[in-house]
This record gives sequence, C-alpha cells and structure tokens, in this order.
Amino acid sequence: MPANVIDTSRSPYARLKPVPIENVKLEDGFWASRLNMLLNVTIPTQYQLLEESGRIDNFRRAAGKVKGLFRGLYFNDSDVYKWVEAASFALAYRRDPRVEELTDRVVAEIAAAQDEDGYLNTYFTFERKKERWSNLRDMHEMYCAGHLFQASVARQRALGKMDLLAVAVRFADHIYDVFGPGRRESVDGHPEVEMALVELYREAGKREYLELAQLLIEQRGRGLIGGSPYHLDHKTFKEMEEIPPGAHAVRALYLCCGAADVYMETGDLGLMEALKRLWRDLVERKMYVTGGVGSRYEGEAVGEAYELPNERAYAETCAAVANAMWNWRMLLATGEARFADVMELALYNGALSGISLSGDLYFYVNPLADRGKHRRQKWFECACCPPNIARLIAYVPSMVYARERDGVYVNLYAASKAWIELDGGRIQLIQRTRYPWDGLVEVEVRPESIDEFSLLLRAPGWSKPARVEVNGEGYGTTQPGSYFEVRRRWKEEDVVRVRFDMGPMLIEAHPRVTCNTGRVAVRYGPLVYCLEQADNEHDVWDLAVVPGTLRAEWRPDLLGGVVAVKGKALALDTSAWAGKLYAPLGEVRAPAREVELTAIPYYAWANREPGPMIVWVRLAEQRTAQQRSA
Amino acid sequence: MPANVIDTSRSPYARLKPVPIENVKLEDGFWASRLNMLLNVTIPTQYQLLEESGRIDNFRRAAGKVKGLFRGLYFNDSDVYKWVEAASFALAYRRDPRVEELTDRVVAEIAAAQDEDGYLNTYFTFERKKERWSNLRDMHEMYCAGHLFQASVARQRALGKMDLLAVAVRFADHIYDVFGPGRRESVDGHPEVEMALVELYREAGKREYLELAQLLIEQRGRGLIGGSPYHLDHKTFKEMEEIPPGAHAVRALYLCCGAADVYMETGDLGLMEALKRLWRDLVERKMYVTGGVGSRYEGEAVGEAYELPNERAYAETCAAVANAMWNWRMLLATGEARFADVMELALYNGALSGISLSGDLYFYVNPLADRGKHRRQKWFECACCPPNIARLIAYVPSMVYARERDGVYVNLYAASKAWIELDGGRIQLIQRTRYPWDGLVEVEVRPESIDEFSLLLRAPGWSKPARVEVNGEGYGTTQPGSYFEVRRRWKEEDVVRVRFDMGPMLIEAHPRVTCNTGRVAVRYGPLVYCLEQADNEHDVWDLAVVPGTLRAEWRPDLLGGVVAVKGKALALDTSAWAGKLYAPLGEVRAPAREVELTAIPYYAWANREPGPMIVWVRLAEQRTAQQRSA
Repeated sequence: MPANVIDTSRSPYARLKPVPIENVKLEDGFWASRLNMLLNVTIPTQYQLLEESGRIDNFRRAAGKVKGLFRGLYFNDSDVYKWVEAASFALAYRRDPRVEELTDRVVAEIAAAQDEDGYLNTYFTFERKKERWSNLRDMHEMYCAGHLFQASVARQRALGKMDLLAVAVRFADHIYDVFGPGRRESVDGHPEVEMALVELYREAGKREYLELAQLLIEQRGRGLIGGSPYHLDHKTFKEMEEIPPGAHAVRALYLCCGAADVYMETGDLGLMEALKRLWRDLVERKMYVTGGVGSRYEGEAVGEAYELPNERAYAETCAAVANAMWNWRMLLATGEARFADVMELALYNGALSGISLSGDLYFYVNPLADRGKHRRQKWFECACCPPNIARLIAYVPSMVYARERDGVYVNLYAASKAWIELDGGRIQLIQRTRYPWDGLVEVEVRPESIDEFSLLLRAPGWSKPARVEVNGEGYGTTQPGSYFEVRRRWKEEDVVRVRFDMGPMLIEAHPRVTCNTGRVAVRYGPLVYCLEQADNEHDVWDLAVVPGTLRAEWRPDLLGGVVAVKGKALALDTSAWAGKLYAPLGEVRAPAREVELTAIPYYAWANREPGPMIVWVRLAEQRTAQQRSA
Repeated sequence: MPANVIDTSRSPYARLKPVPIENVKLEDGFWASRLNMLLNVTIPTQYQLLEESGRIDNFRRAAGKVKGLFRGLYFNDSDVYKWVEAASFALAYRRDPRVEELTDRVVAEIAAAQDEDGYLNTYFTFERKKERWSNLRDMHEMYCAGHLFQASVARQRALGKMDLLAVAVRFADHIYDVFGPGRRESVDGHPEVEMALVELYREAGKREYLELAQLLIEQRGRGLIGGSPYHLDHKTFKEMEEIPPGAHAVRALYLCCGAADVYMETGDLGLMEALKRLWRDLVERKMYVTGGVGSRYEGEAVGEAYELPNERAYAETCAAVANAMWNWRMLLATGEARFADVMELALYNGALSGISLSGDLYFYVNPLADRGKHRRQKWFECACCPPNIARLIAYVPSMVYARERDGVYVNLYAASKAWIELDGGRIQLIQRTRYPWDGLVEVEVRPESIDEFSLLLRAPGWSKPARVEVNGEGYGTTQPGSYFEVRRRWKEEDVVRVRFDMGPMLIEAHPRVTCNTGRVAVRYGPLVYCLEQADNEHDVWDLAVVPGTLRAEWRPDLLGGVVAVKGKALALDTSAWAGKLYAPLGEVRAPAREVELTAIPYYAWANREPGPMIVWVRLAEQRTAQQRSA
C-alpha cells in the first residue's frame, strides 16, 4: 500500500503522480460493474483454468511436489503471474477473502518453485535446466520474469504482502548477475521485463534494476538476437523512426512501455524523442479506430502505414492492453491529453472487446468486420490475453486521476468518490456522471486539508468545445484535446460541471487507408460502434448509413445497458450480383431501400447469437454516386 | 510427339482434344516474343540457378557422384523437374540445341539418382532413407514424384525421348506397390501427383496409374493426414461445397486439376459436380480480378468469400498458374467458354505478372496494390514459382486451339499459323491479329484434306456482342461468354473476321468485397490494368478516376510495347490529413485537381523504378459525394 499501478510518486521525470486504486471508489456505473465482475467471475474462473491447464501444476512440479512433464507452452508461467497481478490490484479495489486466499495459495506455489540461485521458470527445470538463457530470442525467459516482477510489485502494493517481492528480488538479482553491466550482453526476444524492472526498482529500491532495464533497451538493435524488425532488434530504440512493418505488435508496445518507464526515472531525452516519434507513427498511421494494433495475422504484426484491413485485423487483445499501458505512461510522463485520449480509446474499445459481458470468454483477435464465425473462447493454448485484459480492468481505478503538486488531473470520467493527497493536503472528489452514456460530468470538490489547487478536466480530443461551470456559473470553455484547468480557493461542496457532446457522429479514415474508402465508422463519446446482425434485419454488410440521421437511444435492456445508435440506412439488395464477382461499372443494378439501422458499442459485440458485424459501414452517398455514374 | 500438354486425345469424357505445341507456330506478337524469351533467357538462367543452388548437385549426391549434404528445402527436386518440363515443351515449340543439351544433361543426372527399387527423391537418401513415406502430410514426396512424372511425359511428347519416362514408370510402379488399392492408405499433403499420374497413364498406358490417381483423390478427406482444410483433407472431394478458408491455394487448385483429369478418363459425375461447385465458389467469391488466388499470407491460403485484400493479396504466381491449368482442363472436359475466360484471365494477368519483362526475375507474391517495396527476385529459397510460370508459357501454343471431331475451337487469339488434324482430315488456320492490343481477329482457313467442319470462335465473357463476317459478309453476332460456330464447306483462303471491343472499361466488384468499395479497376480486353507511379505525376494511390474519360493508346516504346490507358483523374492532395488518421466525416477538406492518368497492364508492373502501384483505383464520384455530404 498504496496500490499505485505505475508508481511515479518519486520518479524525477514524471510530470504526474499516481492516485492509488484504493483511493478511488467507483460508484454504480460502467467501470464499477466491471470491477465487480472481475472479482466475482473473471479472477475465479481464470484460476480454475490455470489449474486445469496445468499451469499451476508446472510450479508444483518444479518444486518437486508433483511428478510428470511440464504442460503447455514454454511461457505459460507468465499467465499465472499476470493473473496474480490482476487479482492483487482487484483486491486493492475491494477485498474479497476468497480471491485473496486463492492468490495466497498460488503465490506460495510460485515461491516454492524458485531455484536456490534465484532462477525461476518452470519450463527450464530438471532436464531443461542446462538450456537456461541459451535462446533469449525465442524462449521468453525474461518476459516471464517481467510478469513475475509485476505480480510481486502488485501484491506488495495492493496487499502489503512481501513474499512474492522477495522471490522477485532474488530472481532479479540473479538476472543482474548474468546480464548486468559488463556481463553477458543480450536482450529478450519479447520485451516486457524492461517496464517490470523499473517498477521493481521503484518498489524494492535497488538501482541495479533500473540500470538493467536501461541496458536491455540500449542493447536492442545491435543484432544480439538476430536483428529482425519482428523482435524490434533491427535498430537501436533511439534510432527507430517507426514501428516497423512486421514488428510483433505486443512486443513493440511493451518495449515502448519500458522505454517510457526508464525515461521517467532517468530523463533520457533520446528515449522520449523516440517514444514520441513511434507514438505518432502508430497513432497517425497504424492504429485501428478502436485503439487496436496489429494488422497482420502473420507474425501478429504491425503493417505498413495505412495497412488496416478490417475482416483480417489481428488487433490482439494484448496489443490494445499494451497500447493503453503505454499511453498511460506517456500521460504520466508528460501530462499531455493526447495520450489520455488514446489510453481511453484503447481501454473502452480495442481492449474491452477482448472480454465478454459475462466476464469469462475472451477474444485473442479483434476483427473490425466479421461474418459471424469469430467468437470469444473460454481459454487459449496461448492464453496471454485473458489475464491481460483482467489486469487492465483492475488498473482502471488508478487511471481515473493523476496528480501534480497542487493539481488533480481528471483523466477518465467515471462515477466515483476519490481521496487524493496533494502536496499540501488531502482533498475529496465526487464525480457524478453516467459517462460514457452521457456527457454530463459534475465534480463535487471537498477540500479536506488544502483549499487552493487546480482541478484539470480532460477535454477529450473527440469532443467539441464545452462550457465549464463552477457552481452554476460560467468559468470557461474547454479546448478539445487538452486539460481545462479550474484553479481557485475551493469551498466545501463546490461543483464543477461540464457537458461533453457525445455525438453520435460519423468518422472517416485517411484516404490512404484503402480498405475504408467510401466507409465511415460511428462514434459516440469515447466509444466506437459497430453494426451487429442481432439488432438489424438486413445484412449489416449491405447497409449504407445515411449521414445526418443518427441519434442516440438509451437501452437499459440491451447488452447490460448501452446507448444504441439509431439511424437511417440504405439496404442494398445484392441478389442482382448473384453469380458475379466483377462487372462493368454500373452494369449490375442492385436496388436499395431505406431501413432503420441500430449500432452498438464495439466492445459489446459477439455477446449474442452469431452473425455479421461491421465497424466501417458503407456511406450512403457513395452508393447513389455509383448509381448516377452508371 | 505429338507434344500435347494435356493429352485428352483418347480420354473418353473429354469433349475437346488437344492441338500439340509443334502444330501452332506463333507469329510475331505477344506470345511469340515470350516463347523466344523463355528459350533464350528464362530456361538458361534458371538452369544456372538450379546448379548454383545445389538442386542438381542433390541428384549427383544421391547418385554417389559428389559428396556433401543435401542442400536446400526438402522438396527442391520438384524445381528441377518443373524446369525439365518447361524446357521440353519449349523445345517442342522451337528446337534449340543448347537448351536441349542442357535438359539431356539434367535428365541424365536425375536418372542416375534413382534407387534400385524405383524410389527417387534426393532428400530421402542415405541417412534419411529410413524416413521415406513416413510423413506424407508434410514432406511432399508424392508432390515431387508428380513433377517428375509431368517432366517425363513432357520430354517424351516433346522430344520423343523415353529415358525419363522409364524412370517415372519405375517410380510410379513403386508408389503403386506401396499405396495402390488394398495397400497402405494415405494421401500426400500437397496434391500434384494426381494429375501427373493421369498424364503418365495417358502416356505409358498403365491403367494402374489412373487407379492410383482416383484412389488418392477418394482417400482425401478421411483424416489420413490430419483432416485440415489447409491440406484439403477436411472433407472428401465430392463433399466439398467450397474451397475452404485456410486452404493452401496451390494445393487446392492442383487437386482440382487432378480431379478434372480423372473425370476426363472415368466420367465420374460426382467429381465433375464437385469441380463445378468449387469453380463457382472460386470464381464468384474468392478470385482476384487478375485471376490470382490466395488472400492470405498465413498459410498461402484462400480466404473467406469476398475476402480479397489488395496490398496484402498473396496471389502466389503458382496459384495463378494452377488456376490457368485447372481451367484449361475444365475447358477440355466440357467445351464451355467460361473456363476459357478464366484460363485467359489468369494467364495474361495473375500468372504473367510472376515474371519480369526481362524473363529472369520473378514474383512469388502478386499484390494488387503496393507502395514500391515489392520487387521481383532472381530466385527464391522456395523456388516453386519461377519454373512454374516458365512451364505455363511453354504450354501457350497448345492452349490456343482445341478440336472436336469436326470442329476447331479458337480459345486464345494470337497471331499464328496452325495445322490441325480433325477426324476427317487436316486443315490449316492462319490467325492474323494484334490481340491483346487490338480486338480485330482474322482467321484464314485453309482446308487441306477436309472441307466441311466448324470453326468455333471464343467470344470472351468480357466482350460485347460482335459481328462475325465470312469473306466480308455478315455471318452472325457473337454472344459473349460462348463459342460462336461458323460451320460451312470451306474454300481455300476463306477469311473469318471479328472485331472485339477491347474497351478500355471500368470494372467494379461485388459490394461484399469490402476492400473495393468506391474503387474500380481498368480492363482492356483480357488485360487488367494498374496505375504505376512511373507513368504518373501524382501519387497513384491518391488518384480517383473519372468515368467516361478512358482511351487506349498504343505505345510501342513502353514496356516492350503495350496499349496504355489514358484518362482523367482527380488528384487528391492528402496533405490536409497530415497528422490525422481518423476525423469526423467532412472535417478534413482535401482539395483535388484534375490530372491525366496513365494505366499499364498489370503483368508489366515493377519493371521500372520502384514506386506505388494500384489496381483498384478510387472512383471520382465517390470523392465528390464525400465532399457533398460534408
């Protein structure tokens, strides 16, 4: 305690400091219900699956408690660690004795599996002991170690339990002995350990871990693991101009997380410059409208600029989680709202689609169009995504706010009560909002032991200039894509109010995104929408939305309660095309009739009967244009 | 001799019989120059590469003539066989002592490598001898055998040399002993041997080979090699309703070739029904406008219906070659013009793009849009494509005509002289045409020893009804997509004349092809066009073609002589989008100015300096529509 997820409290180059999970009490609403689901369903069912799939037995085996062979993939330990991290932070939000007991038990199994010398990886035990550190490019040993470190830090911060931290420290010391300055030069094929080492440094105080994280970033790009863009080893980090086509999306974004964490400790401007270049490359050229990342199945990789296929989007859940994690770090480092925008985008859309409304089914791949075949699964052989989306949801309470010396940043809007320690004293904030369903936000400020400070409200990049009122009187107008500062001497029950225009609105893509020509997406506030067959009579792939006809409709009965977006569409009857794939322009005359369309939030698709889904809907004008040209 | 490529002369269920290569003398024109290039450049340079890469040394090693390890991939023998096949058929077109000597030498190396028991595969020799036939799913043993059989048949038919046929027969007998009826049940992971066995049966007369081909088709889909759609083992061939998503494109099409060949010998209607279903699935839902096949890099596979990405099209050269081969067989089996349409489409576009104008550089992957990175290579580690496009070009003379009892089918238009044996006697045909650059075709008929017969002119599916004249007088009007029959008692120097409207025209795709929304392709006769940067000032990805402005222009200087298509386009200035990937519809106003566009045949792209290329160009109306909606 405190349960900071990214603990920049003492990071010299972090502009913002965290607000710990336990200080933010989500009230009835979007995220509160998801945190409850996390504790009640996701964490317990994932535990079951970790057991059934042999992942925990692998630790028991390594400890000599059970016989038999290692089960599953060589990096399966990481799933257990990620689960411990998710469970720990969830427990910081709300103590749940059952979940706590489960985590205690799992942590005991982990601890028992550690080698005398500190090494810990259940794949590399017994017969494979001699293969340790022999193939850093492929075998994910440091990747697994990183997840262990993050789990140990989470457990310590959330529950004050040092047991796993002691394990992590012993293992980190071992890694430092092998790979520290002046020792063996190498890097891991799958970045992750970098950010974990920085957190371990923050928690355990050993500067060696920061040094090692630095070293692992600096040594990348020297061909130590083969020099491929896939492994982000084609250039040094500081030389990178782009996230290269073919780069594994999750590895790329985890590496950026690590570099951001190192920057916040060291202030190395070369890192920050590279981070900002890579961020622009991603956000301006290679990111899905959902915040998802990864355009290619082959290599789970990022594509060329503007290569953003919809049906075959890979957009791994882990990549969207990593995108949110990276942008959160960039926000903490800089205080710039553009990073909060992408953090929110990835969180509400590309990442959240990775888990079912029931909390126990998962997407690994998150396409932006589908014919009804793609369904969430209970688990995967490579199960990185389920515990990853779990830990991201557990992080949410800590993402809502951040603090400066005498200012509070409101990053996310969510009904909540929060107690925040500023340098001069403690304040309480009560957010009243139905966000993301409604753009009205009221923040009641209760200065407890300090009265002059700033409240910085994030004006989302997607929003329009909005009037800010303090106690019913006009105070100013927001500028979208920045924080709006209200600074005053606060009195008990002062209320700041702002109403963001949520839309709905239509979005178009850069003309170079060839797959989206003549297509638009529907957005409502931070949410990207899709058309799903369950809500529409005509095949949603054959609908063309008529601009200017959209309206929002609150539907408490639908998908756990969502704002549906209704509008008019032209429904194309494609039967005239039967038997033809190509035809002279205008030769096939497919009639269209006007119908009602219903769009739902993208995160909520595939929770009902299977059927076609599409995010980038055809724009109606284009159809009429084709008819005219015929 | 005669050098029939697919010898249906005695196939009871083939409607059409072949015209052998040596009977068709291509005159100065499109294909004549390519046949010459094949003999002068492609075959000799490929021989060099087969030597340099160790592929021929592998045979020498197996024969005990050289020491050392097997070099390259385990299926590399097939490249040598395909080269022998290509060289042999090319020699039937024109004897070239240098090429003939090369092939004789290579064939001697092959023959010397055969085992006592008839087995022949240079990978499975010495230390790997015990692994023979142990992994039919992955190790391509029958695939390699099939290419050997085809090479041996080609050599016998083209040069009357029996040496390789003797090798093939011994190996085929060996395979029959192992896998024949009542023996071990299995199939090869990579179909190819099926069609080869049928040809070997046709050439060597052993009905066992036909039986074995039948068996290998029938046994597929019983899970003998794991049951995956990738291997076309998920269902029996006759049960298949579609070419399943995830099926390896080349395997799927080779299997269809084999089934068509078996059908022509057995008349098994279940096979033909399945073939027609799969054909419709491919041609109406899964084929690129170029005749290319394969939508996915992962698995080199066919995708879902209408999944036809452009930049990331895989469209392997081998798959377009296989598509032409399959459709040729379907044409021979049925006499239906729709198959000739697809054969011509694949030949002129998706396959021909696989080789450079210089005849010595190759594409493995044939995207339909590119930013200038994709270039032809001299060779590949997996070099299936170079000899495959070589053999397809060698086939061309035999593809031009086919014959019925008393009728000649003109399948392809090409300046040529041909001598054709009908049942009643011999005729000569002189085709005068500049096709594909001009739609005027004159066929001078010289009845040599028979005077009453039919001339069946193919009216391409892409054409418009065209007036057919005999000796300058109207005879009738073609119906596009069928053969037009001129039946009469012919006199010396009778001339049939038809002029097809070549276009240029704009093509659109089925509305479900989401990547082509608002986009059109340019077609001129059988050729699909593309915009390449070398001919255009403005970035071709940012052009929008204005319908109704296209015109053809003969450019003898360009790319070896092509018809270029010129027209008007709106050139979008995308700089207003700088820094944005998504924006509210109409918010970004990118100005457009009218420019001239130039399109070139798709097959000819990437023969000049690298730069962007695009087949599916934005349609201008759509842009104006977006501006209007804003």
